[in-house]
Amino acid sequence: MKINGKPYRTIWPGAGGDAIEVIDQTKLPHRFETLRLSTLEQTAHAIRSMIVRGAPLIGATAAYGMAIALRENPSDEALDRAYDVLLRTRPTAVNLRWALDRMRDTVRNRPRDARAETSWREAAAICDEDVETCRRIGEFGLDLLRKVAATRPGETVNVLTHCNAGWLACVDWGTALAPVYMAHDTGLPLHVWVDETRPRNQGASLTAFELNSHGVPHTVIADNAGGYLMRSRKVDLVIVGTDRVARNGDVANKIGTYLKALAARDNDVPFYVALPSSTIDWLLESGDRIPIEERAGDEVTHISGRTRDGSIAEVEITPAGSPAANPGFDVTPSRLVTGFITERGICSADEAGLRSLFPGTGARRP
Amino acid sequence: MKINGKPYRTIWPGAGGDAIEVIDQTKLPHRFETLRLSTLEQTAHAIRSMIVRGAPLIGATAAYGMAIALRENPSDEALDRAYDVLLRTRPTAVNLRWALDRMRDTVRNRPRDARAETSWREAAAICDEDVETCRRIGEFGLDLLRKVAATRPGETVNVLTHCNAGWLACVDWGTALAPVYMAHDTGLPLHVWVDETRPRNQGASLTAFELNSHGVPHTVIADNAGGYLMRSRKVDLVIVGTDRVARNGDVANKIGTYLKALAARDNDVPFYVALPSSTIDWLLESGDRIPIEERAGDEVTHISGRTRDGSIAEVEITPAGSPAANPGFDVTPSRLVTGFITERGICSADEAGLRSLFPGTGARRP
Repeated sequence: MKINGKPYRTIWPGAGGDAIEVIDQTKLPHRFETLRLSTLEQTAHAIRSMIVRGAPLIGATAAYGMAIALRENPSDEALDRAYDVLLRTRPTAVNLRWALDRMRDTVRNRPRDARAETSWREAAAICDEDVETCRRIGEFGLDLLRKVAATRPGETVNVLTHCNAGWLACVDWGTALAPVYMAHDTGLPLHVWVDETRPRNQGASLTAFELNSHGVPHTVIADNAGGYLMRSRKVDLVIVGTDRVARNGDVANKIGTYLKALAARDNDVPFYVALPSSTIDWLLESGDRIPIEERAGDEVTHISGRTRDGSIAEVEITPAGSPAANPGFDVTPSRLVTGFITERGICSADEAGLRSLFPGTGARRP
Repeated sequence: MKINGKPYRTIWPGAGGDAIEVIDQTKLPHRFETLRLSTLEQTAHAIRSMIVRGAPLIGATAAYGMAIALRENPSDEALDRAYDVLLRTRPTAVNLRWALDRMRDTVRNRPRDARAETSWREAAAICDEDVETCRRIGEFGLDLLRKVAATRPGETVNVLTHCNAGWLACVDWGTALAPVYMAHDTGLPLHVWVDETRPRNQGASLTAFELNSHGVPHTVIADNAGGYLMRSRKVDLVIVGTDRVARNGDVANKIGTYLKALAARDNDVPFYVALPSSTIDWLLESGDRIPIEERAGDEVTHISGRTRDGSIAEVEITPAGSPAANPGFDVTPSRLVTGFITERGICSADEAGLRSLFPGTGARRP
């Protein structure tokens, strides 16, 4: 996507070929800064501290992290260590394990002196494939938006989304937002309700930044407002991303997603989840066992933003002495999900639906 | 309740008898400041800007606002004007209309030279009655908490609440929090999950401040987290306040309440609403027609808090150019409400339940 007219991905090989560059997402929407990552530790830190975030981008970054580690040391021990260090960065998004498994499988049987180049090429391939995957998700989602628009000719289609599943969460295009961009670009009248997504405000910062940059009409709302908007018939459909889908169709996504799915069901609003197949965890029977990251409480008690003079400041909103809990994700049971938008089409949110699009995939851990 | 060992109400007659004093709730939790209100305009402004808020306290403040206006000018015209100015301050809490109606009915047929004194006395009576009403709500709610505790002897009872329906929302004690204080004081082991309640953070600021001051164990959470906690069996019951209950039991309360009610139902967690009978709008058949206040978008886009050096600063969290919408309340359908905790006991959330406790009340507008 373009920032000030210049096309960007969220991750790209840096000059010199021994490092990667990423957009520092902790600075958005107030500053657009890029960051060079040239060691395994820097890469792991970037994932852990959410400089990069979003399931597909976490996977892509981890892939490059492994390539960077193997450039430094192509031994089996270094390979295993990089795998472990990167896998431990964040627990919920399964794309991380998916990308690391793919990288390990690719380089494992290669001679040591070829591992650096092979892994670098594989990481680049993961990125390119992610772009193509998201483009396809966008096209299938576009069909869906067109069908909704066709039922109410001339009227604006109102989409609600939670967190950020746009191009900043992927390498380009996005998952949940790819259909939105394509619909907007084809002239379909569209408006997005953007959940701010406390505590880290990925909606108010990243999704609003994306939509603003692309000129897509949108309105930021407190996470609390979505139920009211659905009851008021102001939402035509909900589209969110996901960090891990269990085999039965249960969906882990940013904390608060489950509440929106409940409201959508209570008001007969379609609730779609957009995902690349790398987000499906074929090994997990149901969502109950998806590990939910517990992050630091200060992400709840402290908020940073832009002061009137343009500087960035952090303020504390709770009284001293009040502790905070900060679960990062919740699980939406598949019964509340209308359908999955994948790179191979749209399917029902259950094992039969997933298997219809991805037959013979991931019966067991590779 | 006590602040630093000194007992406070949220509103009291100021020295000299021609003004009232209130706690400035926009400064909490960072500063405890009181404010003197000596004109109708100051009183209306205090309600509008949420220096005072919470349905019962809005009613009590409006009552004193009318007394202040009549002290200045006891004419019928001044009475009508004060009624109109105060009624327009906020649309959703029906206690405002209830208090103004009661004040007007009390002074209307009194001679002009007696109106100031009569109205001042009536406002004081409204405050005293509110304290007693909340105390009774607390006792009935305490029975409920004891019953929950009895099913799991020795274990902590986990209550989730949204927004602030504590003593700061009333004159003293609170509605939803009155049972919590009483349970804590009797030694019942209890912990409160405090929804931060975006966009104005009444949970993170006011409820956390209250519980912190009183020593009640609590944890602040993002509004998004409640569904996850209920699915994880970490919530035994939800208790919230309300700004207006329609005759059929539909409940208007702070935006986001509906989402918690949906999650409670989905997880078989009891969902109670605590209210004084002045919050029942007998004139409204259902909640669909409760007016929902739309507040300024900058309450979503800007957050104020305490900086590291102790000063209070406001930061902007959205990108320039992203608009925000800010509906202040939502309506929870009565089907999602387990019961009402009132000053006359606990009843089912429907007209039959309300009439069983308040027979012959409010068949039509007085």
